[in-house]
Order: sequence, then C-alpha cells, then structure tokens
Amino acid sequence: MSEAAYVAVDWGTSSFRLWLVGRAGDVLGERRSDEGMMAASKPGFAAVLQSHLEAVGALPALPVIICGMAGARQGWVEAGYVDTPAPLASVLQHAVTVPGQDRDVRILPGIAQRDRSAPDVMRGEETQLLGVLGPQAAADALVCMPGTHSKWVSVNGGTVERFATFMTGELFGAIARETILAHAVAGADEAIDIDAFKSAVSAAFERPAFAANRLFQVRSGQLLYGGTPAAARERISGTLIGLELAAGLAGEAAGAGVTLVASGRLRRLYQLAFDTMSVAVRSVEADDATRRGLSMAAATIWSI
Amino acid sequence: MSEAAYVAVDWGTSSFRLWLVGRAGDVLGERRSDEGMMAASKPGFAAVLQSHLEAVGALPALPVIICGMAGARQGWVEAGYVDTPAPLASVLQHAVTVPGQDRDVRILPGIAQRDRSAPDVMRGEETQLLGVLGPQAAADALVCMPGTHSKWVSVNGGTVERFATFMTGELFGAIARETILAHAVAGADEAIDIDAFKSAVSAAFERPAFAANRLFQVRSGQLLYGGTPAAARERISGTLIGLELAAGLAGEAAGAGVTLVASGRLRRLYQLAFDTMSVAVRSVEADDATRRGLSMAAATIWSI
Repeated sequence: MSEAAYVAVDWGTSSFRLWLVGRAGDVLGERRSDEGMMAASKPGFAAVLQSHLEAVGALPALPVIICGMAGARQGWVEAGYVDTPAPLASVLQHAVTVPGQDRDVRILPGIAQRDRSAPDVMRGEETQLLGVLGPQAAADALVCMPGTHSKWVSVNGGTVERFATFMTGELFGAIARETILAHAVAGADEAIDIDAFKSAVSAAFERPAFAANRLFQVRSGQLLYGGTPAAARERISGTLIGLELAAGLAGEAAGAGVTLVASGRLRRLYQLAFDTMSVAVRSVEADDATRRGLSMAAATIWSI
Repeated sequence: MSEAAYVAVDWGTSSFRLWLVGRAGDVLGERRSDEGMMAASKPGFAAVLQSHLEAVGALPALPVIICGMAGARQGWVEAGYVDTPAPLASVLQHAVTVPGQDRDVRILPGIAQRDRSAPDVMRGEETQLLGVLGPQAAADALVCMPGTHSKWVSVNGGTVERFATFMTGELFGAIARETILAHAVAGADEAIDIDAFKSAVSAAFERPAFAANRLFQVRSGQLLYGGTPAAARERISGTLIGLELAAGLAGEAAGAGVTLVASGRLRRLYQLAFDTMSVAVRSVEADDATRRGLSMAAATIWSI
C-alpha cells in the first residue's frame, strides 16, 4: 500500500461514494452511503464529508476532489457547467474550490447543452467520460450511460459534441411501483427472464410509437395467458430500454460500436439489449470509470 | 317526465355512475360517486348499488343494466368477454344476470383480443362504442377513447375487428406525481398552454423513440431557460398523447377521420392533438355514449 495522496468523491442525488486513494492510484479505503445531495442538505455537506473522511482516517492535509450533484445549484457549492461542444479537458480546468474548508476541496463542473430544441445537462457523467476516454481521446465514441436518467453521448476527438438524457430508469420505477402494472411484477425474483426481455426490446425498437401499448399488454397478456412476475418486469424494462436504443442509435455513428458505462444488473440488461439489436459493445464498469475520472482531475489540479 | 323504466350503471375501476331512465329515454335521476370496483368490494356491490337506488327512489321492480369493471373477475359477478372479431350486437346478447337479487340486475361483458402478439381487453368501452355507433353500424370507424387506459378501436360494419390500449393517462399521472418532473409541474394553473402542448405532440408524433428524452427536456429546459409549470405539464401530456397518436394512426384507415369519445379537459387536449396533426375528428361526449349504449342494452334485453 502506498501513502494516501487524495480523496475522491462521487456525490450523486441519492448516493455518496468516497475513495481514499494512494500515490500509486491504489484504493486504501472506501465508503458508500445513501447520503446523496437530497439527504446531505440537512446535516450539511461539510459534516457528511467530514464523518466519512474520519472513517477512512484521511489526514487533514489531504485534498478532496468531488464530482456529481454536490455541484448543483441545490447542492453544496454550485460548480456551473461547461457548455457543449465541451472538451473533456476543460472540465478539469473548471473545478470550483469549496470556500471556508481546512483542506483543499474542489467540485468538478457538469456539462450543459444550451440548445433550445434539445436542452440537456449532466453532472457526474462528464467525470465517467473522462475516466473512460481520457482528456485527450482522439477517436470518436458513442457512449451509453444507463441509469435513473440514461445519457447517450457523442464524443469527438476528446470533445462532447452532443448528448441526450432519457428518463428510462425513473420511468421504470414509476411504472413498476405506481401503475396497474405493480400487480403484474409483484413478487418477481432476481433472475432475468431473458426471452421476455429480448422480445420486448426488439418490439419497442422496431415500433417505438407503441411503447405505451406494449406496457398495457404486460397486464392484458398476464390476464389472458398468465405469466411470471419476472417476465412482466422484463417486458416493462425491455420496452423502455428498446425505446431508448431506438433513439440513441438513430442517426448516430454507432458503426464503430457503443461504449457502455454501467454496473450490476443494469449492465447485464443493456448488454442483452445491444446483443438483441446486434450492436457491438465495449463495456466499462461505471465505478471504475468514475474513480479514473476523478484521478485524472487530481493529477491535473494537484499534479498527484 | 315519463315513468321510470330502468336503471343504467357505469361501474368503473374507481368511479360509479347511475342514471334512472324514463320510458321516453329521459334522465329522471342521477348519481355519481367514487365507489368504483376497488372501493365497492369492501361494503359489497349489492349494498352500494342499493344505496344509490334508494337515493333516486327506484321502485323494487325496476331492472338494472350495468357495464364496466363490475363484470371483471375481481368485480361483482364475472361477465366474461366477447372475443374479437366481436359484433357489437353480441355484447348485448351476453349480459350476465347477477344471482340472488330481488330485481333483475345484469352486467354486460367486455371484449377480449386473444392474440398472443397483441393481447388486449376492454370493459365499459364496448358499451360506449354501442352508444356511438349502434349495434348495426355499417360504416368503418376508427374510434379513439382517451383515459387512464386509452383505447383505439377499429370497427368494421358493426364488428370490433381490432383494438389497442395505451397506458397514456396512467403514465401521465405517474410521471407528473412520482418522478423528478413533479417539481416542474407543481403549482400549474388550469389553463392549457396550447403552444407547449402542440409542439410536444408534433415532436413525439414525428420521433416517437425520443419520448423519454423529450420528457427529461421538460426538466432540463426549465433548468436552463425557465418556463411555467403549465408549460411543463402540457409538454408531458403532449409527449404522451403524441406518442399515442403516432401508434393509433399508424397503418389505420384514418382517412375518413377519427371518432373521439371523451369529455372535459381530455376531450379538449385530444381535439388539440388531432388538430395539430391535421386529422379530422368527430367528437362525442363520453357520458352520453355510455348512457346511449346502456339504453340499447335495456331495449334489447327487456324491450324497453
């Protein structure tokens, strides 16, 4: 184990991740909690951060680099946006220093697409993009970053040219919990019903306009023909992911394949979806991407 | 006022409507409550019906004709389905008698589309279709019946050939209440933002795959450029209704126009949506359609 060099924090809307990183880039300590932006605003961001710094034994002189919603207007200190076309290197140059702290604490900005016909924002994903592509990436890339709000990003020579956010994950949650389909998915076990998922993906991909109809068929199909809760759940997520792919792959340079930045179950589902549509995928673990991006920021800011 | 001849009931999932109808077809009394199928199962359907019959002073000999979810498996007495292709006249012939009642109480069946690639069911809308088209309709019709679960129905010479249900209304509710967009629509006043609605309809109609992206833009647009809660609400409903129209009008014989069966705000929104897409619409008040359909059933069953 090398000596501790800096602390990296991924501070999202509903989750908090912290890594104590050594001079050799090795992880010396790690913390996870649900003290995201929403929960942290009550005790205060400084107090939440301090408790986790103490838990990993971070010395007072260690600097902290943060990405994510902590930099939103409703967050700790607003870190603004770099506007598209946004060179990833410029994200590193616009980190904002949190005032009044004993140690050096900086928050990375997000990226904004100020286009009235396609307004969009990201916070946190720019750091993952850095981690996946590096600040000097030469090649073009189409990056899919699934989640509550999935991002599809076109990067060209290290510059984020365009991106689009899809409410896929949040729609799934609202539909599976708050509509008549809640009965259809109740009691589903963990295992993925691959056939149900793939057929839903291709149906939504081919006829996106019928998405809200395919969703109702989850219920009417179960009513008339039966079926498991897992199949119902996979039909819902397959419909929403197929819809997302139909848009994300439309008119984009997906010829060279898609870079998928995801983890866990979501990573498996999106890989299955891309397989269904015969699209080549390079898959990157989301947490690794975030940590690599934060380490690039530390290297740029503090030459660590 | 003529003498009371029968009682007509529209018993939905979450609402109950009752009309005391005279020999001349005139409405002698009316009741509305939220004792739909869900609420009525506790006190019991018979008790709920009886309380409303007493409230309008219906004599013990008067028969009752019911349509809607009271005939579902989880309802009062299961009234089954007529399968597609379903002659509307056959709906009238398959009313089920509720056993053990002092008076003659009958529930109309629904219609089922037993097609594994497009399973679908309706309960209540078949009665509205009867009311709008009559049991002997000769002409073809494409009927749009918006609601929690919107139905698009192709009727050919008095027979329901095909139909599709879209979760449009329920999706709107779940999205506006249970996602990040709840903040964007909070405090919206009643007035419809027509421009926001129409532009959302045409965008979703033209690029249905981008629906989940258009929804996120309701938030990112407000974040970057501001905008009223009403505009946000209309962008959500316009996106979902535009998506529905793209499917409902796809490959259907809409050349002769669409028959819209709706009421209130929904009727206005759908009329605006059809106007946006330059589709001719014949608009029918939903309540009138239901009552006319129930009166046709009473005429067939009891020759009233």
